Amino acid sequence: MDSRRAESFSDGVFAVAITVLVFNLLSIADQTSTAGRHPALTAAYLGHFWPAYLAYVVSFLTIGIMWLNHHTMFSQVTKVDRPVLVLNLLLLMGIVAIPFPTALVADHLTAHGAIGSPASVAAVTYGLVMIVISIGYASVWIYLAAHQQALGARRRVHRPRLSTFRFTFGNAGYVAGTLIALVSPVTALIIFGLLAVYYMIEHLPSESIESDAAVEASEATGQS
Amino acid sequence: MDSRRAESFSDGVFAVAITVLVFNLLSIADQTSTAGRHPALTAAYLGHFWPAYLAYVVSFLTIGIMWLNHHTMFSQVTKVDRPVLVLNLLLLMGIVAIPFPTALVADHLTAHGAIGSPASVAAVTYGLVMIVISIGYASVWIYLAAHQQALGARRRVHRPRLSTFRFTFGNAGYVAGTLIALVSPVTALIIFGLLAVYYMIEHLPSESIESDAAVEASEATGQS
Amino acid sequence: MDSRRAESFSDGVFAVAITVLVFNLLSIADQTSTAGRHPALTAAYLGHFWPAYLAYVVSFLTIGIMWLNHHTMFSQVTKVDRPVLVLNLLLLMGIVAIPFPTALVADHLTAHGAIGSPASVAAVTYGLVMIVISIGYASVWIYLAAHQQALGARRRVHRPRLSTFRFTFGNAGYVAGTLIALVSPVTALIIFGLLAVYYMIEHLPSESIESDAAVEASEATGQS
Amino acid sequence: MDSRRAESFSDGVFAVAITVLVFNLLSIADQTSTAGRHPALTAAYLGHFWPAYLAYVVSFLTIGIMWLNHHTMFSQVTKVDRPVLVLNLLLLMGIVAIPFPTALVADHLTAHGAIGSPASVAAVTYGLVMIVISIGYASVWIYLAAHQQALGARRRVHRPRLSTFRFTFGNAGYVAGTLIALVSPVTALIIFGLLAVYYMIEHLPSESIESDAAVEASEATGQS
Repeated sequence: MDSRRAESFSDGVFAVAITVLVFNLLSIADQTSTAGRHPALTAAYLGHFWPAYLAYVVSFLTIGIMWLNHHTMFSQVTKVDRPVLVLNLLLLMGIVAIPFPTALVADHLTAHGAIGSPASVAAVTYGLVMIVISIGYASVWIYLAAHQQALGARRRVHRPRLSTFRFTFGNAGYVAGTLIALVSPVTALIIFGLLAVYYMIEHLPSESIESDAAVEASEATGQS
Repeated sequence: MDSRRAESFSDGVFAVAITVLVFNLLSIADQTSTAGRHPALTAAYLGHFWPAYLAYVVSFLTIGIMWLNHHTMFSQVTKVDRPVLVLNLLLLMGIVAIPFPTALVADHLTAHGAIGSPASVAAVTYGLVMIVISIGYASVWIYLAAHQQALGARRRVHRPRLSTFRFTFGNAGYVAGTLIALVSPVTALIIFGLLAVYYMIEHLPSESIESDAAVEASEATGQS
Repeated sequence: MDSRRAESFSDGVFAVAITVLVFNLLSIADQTSTAGRHPALTAAYLGHFWPAYLAYVVSFLTIGIMWLNHHTMFSQVTKVDRPVLVLNLLLLMGIVAIPFPTALVADHLTAHGAIGSPASVAAVTYGLVMIVISIGYASVWIYLAAHQQALGARRRVHRPRLSTFRFTFGNAGYVAGTLIALVSPVTALIIFGLLAVYYMIEHLPSESIESDAAVEASEATGQS
Repeated sequence: MDSRRAESFSDGVFAVAITVLVFNLLSIADQTSTAGRHPALTAAYLGHFWPAYLAYVVSFLTIGIMWLNHHTMFSQVTKVDRPVLVLNLLLLMGIVAIPFPTALVADHLTAHGAIGSPASVAAVTYGLVMIVISIGYASVWIYLAAHQQALGARRRVHRPRLSTFRFTFGNAGYVAGTLIALVSPVTALIIFGLLAVYYMIEHLPSESIESDAAVEASEATGQS
């Protein structure tokens, strides 16, 4: 299968998953609308749902960056085979689940205390989903790197070690965040947000406009 | 109509339908958030919703594999006519409905007992939706195979009997699973999951990278 | 703007809107899951929600056929200007709203009786949304037909009168259905379903594979 | 990255976000379906939810016009780099959130009175989200304009001052609307609707069919 089509389906899934995050905000609106059972809508009452806004921002950035890196990863090849598609499906299964731990964190972040408090259970669940997704990314990446030739790679990956290191660093970040979530759920959520920012800056090699231009130039002159 | 546009709309529907599955998980978050009426959020309480996670995984794999096979099926032709589009619409009507029996199974799988227990009603409903979808696939496939010429088939299907057999085997699996759901809903759900794995491996003929390459090579040399 | 991009956005909206219909089924699952307040899940209890299944099928076919005709309409031109985009937006505003009257019908179809019963209010609302959408289609179609030249029409529409007649017939059907909804909501819903089937068969001119082939052939030979 | 792919992901997000608006209408259907707790479904009862319909129309037009202008903005360039993608992500984060203040307005618009009434809190929240989105648009636009060369701009923007003025006018409109929301939430919502209509007519330069034709003509003759 042409890799573009697999990407196009994945793009659709990413776009829907990132938009589903707004349902956590809609449930706030729901809670404020049942007159009588809740206090009237005031700025203070809306502010009281700050964990939901924080969780929305962190998860939105995370899914957004994951989309970017998903594209970077698949732009390395021109074709995909069945194993890639199946691994990609497992990866998407993790990404689509993100709104679930996001909702848990949004609902329980203020209920923190000892280990095992609702807030830490929620934040640990969040971290575990992220770790599962990281493993998914690593699996697809390792498979793509190992089958570059067969999948019509656009260019050889020259620095596999460095990019592996970067991936490992990010994954270690999610593991550390999950452990920290046991004692300080808010700190953990901030770490997850910072990891998204980290992945914004650091990423898979060879994706700047310059290198694309270089590749196109070399293709035009017949050099690989 | 160019078959790519029909596929692109179908892709969108598949992408949204697969993402809607997360709403079954969000309803878990909902149940844990209504403080007072439910026990506090603990790991054990989250674990207690295992049927929802199992149903999520089974349905996600199922829709994902259905997307793959949908693509394989439509990649055989270059054009689609009205009857194909209408049949495809009926097929999508079944696929979009999948989150419904998934939710039933997620909510009732632990309430099993005699035939007619909520768990068996839920699992039988799941199986019936799968059987309807299987019939939808068979209809589209039979129509496409019968009108290969008119729809600009990329290559003649050389082994219609074998692929028919494979389809029949899969469909028989769903019928068997539905019957088993009467007495053992959990076993049935596992069978539905294994059928998704089966369709991951076994599939319509001629879709490997090698055969595509062969087709392209023969096209390049002017042979049909 | 290239008409393909406007179509691609519209396709996305159609794909999401058609999938949102499953939420009416998910709310059935919700109602069966709150143990204690409702009877246990049985086949009979599930069957009791037949208006929801009927409404799902009618609305799914309706949105699906509207997608087909939307494509047929926009495939006549190669470019779109601002007025087309704004008219198209108004049309989509009606289509996205379809799940709302669908939910009303699903919830109230069994509560019928005299004029003004919940069932007739629901079915009339359904019909009014359909009439608004029909007007939207007519507006886009009239605008496209009037600006064929400027929008780079692929081929001149040779039978504007006939197609206008067909449109009018369909619209009259929705008006008639809405009036019938006042006294017999179930009959009205069946009429809305039959109108979808009617639009499946009868449609805008020149969209068969044969005519496409003819156009391509004439383009290849340099004839307009 | 090719700008088309970034647009295609953004299109998906816009399409889902605009369709999520129907969930505010679905929650009306929900409220009418819980027999016993609410009055029976009548035309008057449905009419009583007019703020939800008004909010639906205003937000639908707003997201729709934002989609149009997003396209216009990105059609100016052929490539996008990391900073553009990150800014675009922040912009989308605001757009995806629109259904949230829409729901607040739908639920509370009739509860107006003094400053700080639920209606004014809802309408001010709506306005603040719009202001954040306006800032997002301005950021992307300023970045694109500053890096036209590097991003492979299709044509030089000749009237940056005028377009900046138009943007500023629109943004000032959202600020004014937000201030008015403090005292008259209904007026504010109407202003937000009129701003959408304003953006329908007034927009970024050089997007008419004529100018596209001119550019293509000049490209064909080798002039930049």
